[in-house]
Amino acid sequence: MGVVVSLGEGARKDKSLEPLMALVADDMQRVNEVILSMARSDVEMIPELAGHLINSGGKRLRPVLTIAAAQMCGYTGASHVKLASSVEFMHTATLLHDDVVDESDLRRGKVAARILWGNEASVLVGDFLLGQAFRMMVETGSLESLRILANAAAVIAEGEVMQLAASKDTSTTEDAYLEVINAKTAALFSAAAEVGAVIAERPHDEQAALESFGRNLGVAFQLVDDALDYSGKQSLLGKSVGDDFREGKITLPVVLAYRRGDTEERTFWKRTLEAGDQQEGDLEKAISLLERHRALTDTVERAHHYGAIARDALAIFPESAHKTALMQAVDFCVNREH
Amino acid sequence: MGVVVSLGEGARKDKSLEPLMALVADDMQRVNEVILSMARSDVEMIPELAGHLINSGGKRLRPVLTIAAAQMCGYTGASHVKLASSVEFMHTATLLHDDVVDESDLRRGKVAARILWGNEASVLVGDFLLGQAFRMMVETGSLESLRILANAAAVIAEGEVMQLAASKDTSTTEDAYLEVINAKTAALFSAAAEVGAVIAERPHDEQAALESFGRNLGVAFQLVDDALDYSGKQSLLGKSVGDDFREGKITLPVVLAYRRGDTEERTFWKRTLEAGDQQEGDLEKAISLLERHRALTDTVERAHHYGAIARDALAIFPESAHKTALMQAVDFCVNREH
Repeated sequence: MGVVVSLGEGARKDKSLEPLMALVADDMQRVNEVILSMARSDVEMIPELAGHLINSGGKRLRPVLTIAAAQMCGYTGASHVKLASSVEFMHTATLLHDDVVDESDLRRGKVAARILWGNEASVLVGDFLLGQAFRMMVETGSLESLRILANAAAVIAEGEVMQLAASKDTSTTEDAYLEVINAKTAALFSAAAEVGAVIAERPHDEQAALESFGRNLGVAFQLVDDALDYSGKQSLLGKSVGDDFREGKITLPVVLAYRRGDTEERTFWKRTLEAGDQQEGDLEKAISLLERHRALTDTVERAHHYGAIARDALAIFPESAHKTALMQAVDFCVNREH
Repeated sequence: MGVVVSLGEGARKDKSLEPLMALVADDMQRVNEVILSMARSDVEMIPELAGHLINSGGKRLRPVLTIAAAQMCGYTGASHVKLASSVEFMHTATLLHDDVVDESDLRRGKVAARILWGNEASVLVGDFLLGQAFRMMVETGSLESLRILANAAAVIAEGEVMQLAASKDTSTTEDAYLEVINAKTAALFSAAAEVGAVIAERPHDEQAALESFGRNLGVAFQLVDDALDYSGKQSLLGKSVGDDFREGKITLPVVLAYRRGDTEERTFWKRTLEAGDQQEGDLEKAISLLERHRALTDTVERAHHYGAIARDALAIFPESAHKTALMQAVDFCVNREH
C-alpha cells in the first residue's frame, strides 16, 4: 500500500541528503559531543533516558539546518555548534513530551521512553533537556538567537495545545491544520535555519530568507510525514503505520478525504477519529478511502508546493556547495519514503 | 494532630509576611499584569488552564523575592518585573508538570488542572509557560540573569528526576534528601533572589548573599512543607493532608522516623511507601509514628537552622525596610501553619 508520489515540476532527480550531510559532518561530530556532554548528569536516569532517544539514529535534520546555514553564511566561530545542539535538545524534549501526550508505544522504531521509564520521567527529562538547551544558548551570548529560539519554544507548545484542542474535529479546515503544523513543526525548522544567519551576523534579508526556507521546509516535511503515516514501510519509518489513525489525529490526508467523501464516509471518520470507536479492519478501510480520494498523493503534492517556496527563498544567496546541498535536502524531504 | 513548632533561638515574634508584601505591592501589581498578558493565547485552553493556577491565590513568594531583592539593591528600571514574572511562570510550569508526575488531585485547594483538562494539556501548557518565561528574560537583555534562570530550570528538572528515582527508597539519608530539595525547590528560590541583585548590577558579594539567602529560605520552606503535609489543616493548606504519604514520597519526616524506628516500624514504612500497599488507618499510623519519634518537630527544627543561615546571609546589607521585611519573611516561612 505504498503511495504513488507525484513528481511535480518542482521535484529534482537527485534527492539525496548526502551532499548536505558531507558538508556538515565535522561540525555535526562536534554537535554530537556537546549533546552527549550536556545530557550527562549524576542522576543516572537522565543520561539513560536521553541517550535512548539521542542514540536512536534520527537524521538530526534540525541541527543540520543550523550548521549548514551558519556555514553558508561564512560563519567561522564555534557558537553554531551550541545553537545546533540546543535545537536538537528542544526537539528531543518535544518528542519526550509528545509521547506522553500521544500515548505512543514506538518512537523512531524503538520502544518509546515513556513505556520503559514511565510518563513521569519522560516529562521531567524533557524539562531537563529544555533547561540545558537554554543554558547552551546563553553561552553563545547571542540575545537575538535566544529571542528566536525562546519564541519557537512557546510557539511549538502553543501549536501542540492547538492540535490537542482540534484533534477530535474531523471538519478541521486545511488552513486551520496548516496553522497547527506551522506552529508545532515548522517553527523549530525556521528558527534552526534562521539562527545560522543570525550568529553569522548576516543582514536581515538573509536571516529572513533562511527563516522562510526553514518554515516551508518544515511544513513540507510534516505533510510528507502525515502521508507516510498511512503509507510508509514500518521497517523504514521507525514508527507504526496507522499511529495517527489510532490516536485519532486529524492530519491533512484525513482533512482532504473527509471533505471529498460522502455522508457515509464522514460518519466513518467521525466514528473512528472523533469517537475513537475503532474496530478490526478500520485502518485498512481508512487507507482505501484516502487512496480513493487521492488524499495521500495530494498531501504529497501540497508538500511539493511548500518545498518549491523553500527553494525560492534561498535564491538570494550566491551559488555555493551549501546552497545546492540545501536545495537537494528539500527534494529529499518531499520525496522521502521514510 | 497539629505539630508543636519548637521556637528555637532564631525565631522572631513578628513572623508576618505583611511588611514585605506592602513594600512590593506596586511592582507585584505590574507582575500580575505581565503574567496575565503573557498567559494570553488564541488557543483558548492555554489562558483557561494557566488562569486556573495563576488565579488560585498562591502567595507568589518567588517573584516577591525577585522584586524585593531588586528594590533592596536600589534598582530603578523595569526589568525586575519581567524577571519576577518569568520566575512565577517557571514555578507554574513546574507545578503543572509535577501534578502529572505525582498524579495529584488537588493543587492549592483546587482540583488539579490535569483532572480538569487532562495530563496532555498540563504538560503542554507547562511547556508554553516555560517558553514565555524565556521570552521575557530575553527581553530584559540580561545574559547573566538568563544564565542563572536557565541553570535553575535544568537543576529543578534534575532534582525532580532525582526524587523520582529515590522516591521509593525509605533508607534515603538526610543528606541525599537535602540534595533533592536543594535542586527541586531551593534552586528557584535562590535564582529568584539572585537575579534581583544581578539586574541592579550590584557587586558579586551582594549577588552571592541573595543567592545564599534564597537557597536557605527555599530549603527551610520545603522542610516546613514536608512537615505540614502530615500535620497541616487541609482548609488552610490548599492540598490534602497525607498527599506525600499516598504518593509514596520519602520526605524528611519519614527519613527521620524510619532511621529512629524499630524493625517492625521499618517494615511498615517499606510496605506503605516502597511497595505502595496502603490500607485503612495507615496514614493515621504513619502520623503517630512520626509524632512518637519527634520527626515532624525535628523537621521544623531543621527548617529553623536553614532559616538562620538565610538571615545571616543578608547581614552584609545595610539596614533598610527591605532587609527587615525579608528577615521577617524567613520567620513567616519557618513558623507558618499553611
